[in-house]
Amino acid sequence: MVSRPVIALDVMGGDGGAPVVIAGAEIAKRRDPDLCFHLYGREEDIRRELAAAPGVAADSTVVHTNVAVGPNDKPTQAIRRARDSSMGLAIADVKSGAAQAAVSAGNTGALMAMAKLSLRTMEGIERPALAALLPTLGDNDLVMLDLGANTECDTENLVQFAVMGAAYARTVMGLERPRVKLLNIGEEDLKGTSELKEAATLLRGATYLPMRFEGFTEGDKLGRGDADVIVTDGFSGNIALKTIEGTARMVTDLLRRSFESSLRSKLGFLMSRPALQMLRVHLDPNNHNGAVFLGLNGLVVKSHGGANSIGIANAIGVAAALVREDITRRIIQDLDNFKAHMTASQTAEQQQGQDSING
Amino acid sequence: MVSRPVIALDVMGGDGGAPVVIAGAEIAKRRDPDLCFHLYGREEDIRRELAAAPGVAADSTVVHTNVAVGPNDKPTQAIRRARDSSMGLAIADVKSGAAQAAVSAGNTGALMAMAKLSLRTMEGIERPALAALLPTLGDNDLVMLDLGANTECDTENLVQFAVMGAAYARTVMGLERPRVKLLNIGEEDLKGTSELKEAATLLRGATYLPMRFEGFTEGDKLGRGDADVIVTDGFSGNIALKTIEGTARMVTDLLRRSFESSLRSKLGFLMSRPALQMLRVHLDPNNHNGAVFLGLNGLVVKSHGGANSIGIANAIGVAAALVREDITRRIIQDLDNFKAHMTASQTAEQQQGQDSING
Repeated sequence: MVSRPVIALDVMGGDGGAPVVIAGAEIAKRRDPDLCFHLYGREEDIRRELAAAPGVAADSTVVHTNVAVGPNDKPTQAIRRARDSSMGLAIADVKSGAAQAAVSAGNTGALMAMAKLSLRTMEGIERPALAALLPTLGDNDLVMLDLGANTECDTENLVQFAVMGAAYARTVMGLERPRVKLLNIGEEDLKGTSELKEAATLLRGATYLPMRFEGFTEGDKLGRGDADVIVTDGFSGNIALKTIEGTARMVTDLLRRSFESSLRSKLGFLMSRPALQMLRVHLDPNNHNGAVFLGLNGLVVKSHGGANSIGIANAIGVAAALVREDITRRIIQDLDNFKAHMTASQTAEQQQGQDSING
Repeated sequence: MVSRPVIALDVMGGDGGAPVVIAGAEIAKRRDPDLCFHLYGREEDIRRELAAAPGVAADSTVVHTNVAVGPNDKPTQAIRRARDSSMGLAIADVKSGAAQAAVSAGNTGALMAMAKLSLRTMEGIERPALAALLPTLGDNDLVMLDLGANTECDTENLVQFAVMGAAYARTVMGLERPRVKLLNIGEEDLKGTSELKEAATLLRGATYLPMRFEGFTEGDKLGRGDADVIVTDGFSGNIALKTIEGTARMVTDLLRRSFESSLRSKLGFLMSRPALQMLRVHLDPNNHNGAVFLGLNGLVVKSHGGANSIGIANAIGVAAALVREDITRRIIQDLDNFKAHMTASQTAEQQQGQDSING
């Protein structure tokens, strides 16, 4: 186990820039004093913020660059022109092994493209997936992937996402056999695309994997807490994630309006404020910040672009937990296990085929 | 304009059965005294409920059947075996022209399959779409389609859904040029599947249609009220719709738990109850019940299976409004308009091609 994780931090990414990123790192350092940082960005800006962040200042190296990836840069542009950007250098730091994880609140598409090009996908993995923890009404959080890295996914992608998501749940949530479900438009076997139905068949047969596959689930059951991992293609996953955010915001907005509708309800609001504060904390995306690209030979964590310092600190916390639990090695082991069983069962089938021809 | 809409009612569909469906019809009749009903189901059950529903009893015909489509029947089974079911007979009633719309709270897949087989799609429409009104934070409701009739959609399907959804918004919401957006995983032109990008190009060019196409939107912006029609494939639409329902339920659940967390907040809750009641009414799916299959030669409205009598009444209200505004004819007109322009522009392009070859 890595005792002192080194985090490569893209100080130029996100809406808040250096002040928010460094303040976030300071919170993370206070929570986890063993963290070390490599800080990539404009040295002048970083030094200014470090004055108010003594913990980070004591355990960090500053690497200066003037190049930033813009929020609207296309992934192809970023690959060609932004190798020396704060984002590109942070990823290169993971590639070289100097840092164990990179954290960035910058442009998701560019981050994905640069990370994939530099770190490469694990052997046998065609596409990395973006995974994050979501809150539920149960006692457990939920790992959901893919949240938008891949617009279209085939059967193999979905099966690999399930294996990677289960490894995430095992390492971060400490579950031995996480419950895995596929997101679909119904729970019956005949529902959904052919890719989903085939993935379900494959996963149902993969009983040797450290997970329990429990079939399909639907959009209205995401928050129920009866699954540990929910697997979907990046298009549906992105729609679902953003719909959760939007609806939570809409309901709390309606709630505020309701409270403002009369003097009596205004008074009621004042009395219930501590309770409503609890709700706000539970729903605040900053408290669930930090999505990881699974399937790469190295760890890259994406923070929400609009995250505040608490959000950045949480994203750093996710990165540190995944480094400590050595998730990359665990995923590779699970995938090897899956491949070995698949090959064995294919050989057995071919043998059977031969036998029946010969017999 | 049809002054006395005749609604064919599947009295055996839905979780509540005859008591809920007939009570719902009675509420609808009280709101709109011109309604007439054809009631399909077990005569004994219907007569018993009609005793408490004098409005409906006065203006309805009862047609007896013992056959019901089960909630888990496959669409293929329903087509083969359930022609004489309450659902099948209600659809046949629309086909014959005796009723102007059918309303059912039964099995969605079976309803879709039977309606498509019996009523057929409009000329040039490959697939019908399921459309419903959703609440927003703005002053307007929102038409969203497809909500699950089609798992996969091509460019042409999406464009046709946009035309049909805009016709819905024009008739029911009284808008001259509804704002139409495509649901995507980003607002930039380069985001999403090729089908979405091509559909956007076609719709952007179709300025002669009575709608304003305003590009892409995302899952977190569904409730914002800045679009009148949101178009998506049935898979994503179903995921988004159910995620909205599930998240709204989750937030209100968390809210209740927060209120129960201390005596002070319990008192606050009692004071704010009227305000919270407003929120509950706004979010109750029964108050937005009634999704219509657009693109068929006849009107079929699907109620939520778990709807209460208010929900059933609202679904009947949707059916009556669409009958009165003659939505089927309006959609056919808009589609003809679109096809004529497409053919004209193709001919012009071919002519140009010819000219450049000859020139």
